[in-house]
Amino acid sequence: MLQSHTRIRVRYAETDMMGIVYHGSYATWFEMARVEMMDRFGYPYLEMERDGYRLPVLELHARYKRSVTFDDHVTVEAVLREKPGARIRIEYRVTRGDEEVAEGATLHAFVNHNGRPVRPPARFTEGMAALFDRSDATGPS
Amino acid sequence: MLQSHTRIRVRYAETDMMGIVYHGSYATWFEMARVEMMDRFGYPYLEMERDGYRLPVLELHARYKRSVTFDDHVTVEAVLREKPGARIRIEYRVTRGDEEVAEGATLHAFVNHNGRPVRPPARFTEGMAALFDRSDATGPS
Amino acid sequence: MLQSHTRIRVRYAETDMMGIVYHGSYATWFEMARVEMMDRFGYPYLEMERDGYRLPVLELHARYKRSVTFDDHVTVEAVLREKPGARIRIEYRVTRGDEEVAEGATLHAFVNHNGRPVRPPARFTEGMAALFDRSDATGPS
Amino acid sequence: MLQSHTRIRVRYAETDMMGIVYHGSYATWFEMARVEMMDRFGYPYLEMERDGYRLPVLELHARYKRSVTFDDHVTVEAVLREKPGARIRIEYRVTRGDEEVAEGATLHAFVNHNGRPVRPPARFTEGMAALFDRSDATGPS
Repeated sequence: MLQSHTRIRVRYAETDMMGIVYHGSYATWFEMARVEMMDRFGYPYLEMERDGYRLPVLELHARYKRSVTFDDHVTVEAVLREKPGARIRIEYRVTRGDEEVAEGATLHAFVNHNGRPVRPPARFTEGMAALFDRSDATGPS
Repeated sequence: MLQSHTRIRVRYAETDMMGIVYHGSYATWFEMARVEMMDRFGYPYLEMERDGYRLPVLELHARYKRSVTFDDHVTVEAVLREKPGARIRIEYRVTRGDEEVAEGATLHAFVNHNGRPVRPPARFTEGMAALFDRSDATGPS
Repeated sequence: MLQSHTRIRVRYAETDMMGIVYHGSYATWFEMARVEMMDRFGYPYLEMERDGYRLPVLELHARYKRSVTFDDHVTVEAVLREKPGARIRIEYRVTRGDEEVAEGATLHAFVNHNGRPVRPPARFTEGMAALFDRSDATGPS
Repeated sequence: MLQSHTRIRVRYAETDMMGIVYHGSYATWFEMARVEMMDRFGYPYLEMERDGYRLPVLELHARYKRSVTFDDHVTVEAVLREKPGARIRIEYRVTRGDEEVAEGATLHAFVNHNGRPVRPPARFTEGMAALFDRSDATGPS
């Protein structure tokens, strides 16, 4: 399992006239968490792009449980539960203190700079194998 | 069934460094379509807010099929298929010419200005009854 | 003089918790007006980018006179008053009905796809000469 | 003088198809720096709003010197140079390492929750007097 935690202080710009964070802003929060997850994985998003790969969003899902407002401090957790194949599913959990305020998921696939679907870069595939195979190996036997 | 079509010319600001529309921007497009759907229904969103009601997003789902870029002209269709109860589910379809580029759905419930869940306003409930009951009445018998 | 008018229906996403349009949203409105101004000029922004040119913003100025809110209909006027040299200055005026709600200006210069400053494309220079020299020619003599 | 420094890691969502940060995004960065400046001042923006005051932007100015891109780390400095009267002018400087990438300024005035101009809250006026009069007092005499 791969996991990261990102601390966010809610920006005024992220609110709307309902007085709470605009629901679309969470897409950006998920993205920030995803970027940090890739940092932890050891293949930063920026390097991946420089290597000629892009990882567009194929699906976005969000479930809003409690409203969040300006100046709240939230933590966004990103989790990759399973070794990804052609598609990569990442899950998110937004918390404010002990309270879960939202959860979500995104689905991704690698494309090249022309937007054509491609196999994941070797650095990604090998890193994932090392991560998930090692995890399995350390399980009870 | 309640339905609307909103024409959007893609803004430069809506793109990201992938050269295509940022996936989070679709949340705003869905919202624009939803607002026009309420116009067609005869109870504009702004009036609803003035009457003391708000209609926050409980869930957001989007599926991206083709990339859209700056200066594309897209149409966002919003559809309410079933007479809403406590929860309102709206579906979206984004097309560019004949091509479907994305689809999605949002789930909503009415709250008051303090964010407390409330029953839908009578104007909404009655309008929906008129719309969907009439539809049923005019079906084959 | 080159001029355009862009009609905008204010989006919910453009508001903030003050209940009015977030001041940063006007940058995008100015951009929409600028894009339409280039359409009228006959050299659409997208074609300019495809020709290898980009027109980044060097300066942004905005003066907010009246607040604008969700569902307002505003018109953004973009004006190019003088034949541009190396730098291009565009002015904006945002109105709601007869009321001026904001004004602003942006300053631009051409760069290539690597971000290096370059001379304006010939199509741009010639079009501007045709436009402004003709204007001068028709002035009092 | 009142001053703050805010560290920002550039978000993917803040870029546009030019491959760099969208110029309008800086309005939000200035706002984040302003919020931290008010924290340092001891009258957080959120408390000010709860006390019935709002501090809308009357003017926004930005000058872009170098492009900034995804995953850059920038620092936004906010400075209040003079004791504010009815209007409050805040200056900003965005740096990446030793390099200045942008500068700007915003002008503000207090309004109440109905948008009517009002005198600054006593807590603000007294704090500013303490800050700037003390500064003067410690100057050469």
